[in-house]
Amino acid sequence: MSATERREGPRAAMTASAIALMRERGVAATSFRDVLEHSGAPRGSIYHHFPGGKAQLVEEATETAAARIERALTAQIHGVGVVGTVRAIVDQWRDDLVAGGFVAGCPVVAAGLGPEPRARARAGAAFGAFVEVIARSLAAEGVPEQRARSLGNLVIGALEGALVMAQAQRSPAPLDAVVGELEVLLGSVVE
Amino acid sequence: MSATERREGPRAAMTASAIALMRERGVAATSFRDVLEHSGAPRGSIYHHFPGGKAQLVEEATETAAARIERALTAQIHGVGVVGTVRAIVDQWRDDLVAGGFVAGCPVVAAGLGPEPRARARAGAAFGAFVEVIARSLAAEGVPEQRARSLGNLVIGALEGALVMAQAQRSPAPLDAVVGELEVLLGSVVE
Repeated sequence: MSATERREGPRAAMTASAIALMRERGVAATSFRDVLEHSGAPRGSIYHHFPGGKAQLVEEATETAAARIERALTAQIHGVGVVGTVRAIVDQWRDDLVAGGFVAGCPVVAAGLGPEPRARARAGAAFGAFVEVIARSLAAEGVPEQRARSLGNLVIGALEGALVMAQAQRSPAPLDAVVGELEVLLGSVVE
Repeated sequence: MSATERREGPRAAMTASAIALMRERGVAATSFRDVLEHSGAPRGSIYHHFPGGKAQLVEEATETAAARIERALTAQIHGVGVVGTVRAIVDQWRDDLVAGGFVAGCPVVAAGLGPEPRARARAGAAFGAFVEVIARSLAAEGVPEQRARSLGNLVIGALEGALVMAQAQRSPAPLDAVVGELEVLLGSVVE
């Protein structure tokens, strides 16, 4: 948990802890008790802040994580374009995986495969939003709209899938292979 | 459960049930009790057949599922080549997703993200094996070995990632977009 999250109070701390635990264990294995312990929030606060129970906590955690990823993705694309962004994402993920023992994955994938229907739907919307960010950037560089969207799906699908493979193999090799292919493909389309 | 699985006795039935439940709920939320109920196996049989407990059951389920996928992948590639296989996989997955309400995903992804370290490692090995099947076929069609392997990672990563996106969105659209891109890319490399 960052100093900012701690300063924002127990609600933000619980959301941040839910995200961290979902990334490591998935939604099903992330309990209220785990989130309380991880965040250090007072016992009563969880039902006070999340009267809708675990479904609400997980849904808000998914939304918070997705919004953060979408903002970062948008900022990076404005800075270095789609090809540079794909490389930057993989470089960041590689560092995180190696530093964290390959345990933590994508919180949106966790929500998308989890048992909470509303969090699952939020994950679906988040994937769509990530694809749109890529697609809009490619379209702005002259790629026809439908092609830009299918490339957006390929980029997000390939990165998310390669992340799962990297976690299972405890090796960044799948991410390195995929980013190389995506760079060649995207480079051929936008240049 | 198929008639063949039932005929093969309680051990195969429990493995088949573990695979089915992992695909829907992930590993953490698949309990021994759930597997007994789903398979109809007698109560005592689970510790008789799986003395190593849930870790052993999940590991064997992952290995069984992975071996089946690898055999199917190999047979399909021999029949219709890599491009035809990618299309066939997506057509099959689309039918399964629509028929099953988008609930069941890939058992190897479930194992790769799950809490059982040996099943996770099996999943990692399985992803590697799937990549090798694709890479060998591409290499046989003249693609240089290293490129064939990175394309293999792209194909498996993109298909697995798009499957997660399709489950979350309750729509086959991400799979359809990704298969279109993969067809163009693979077609340009092997033809």
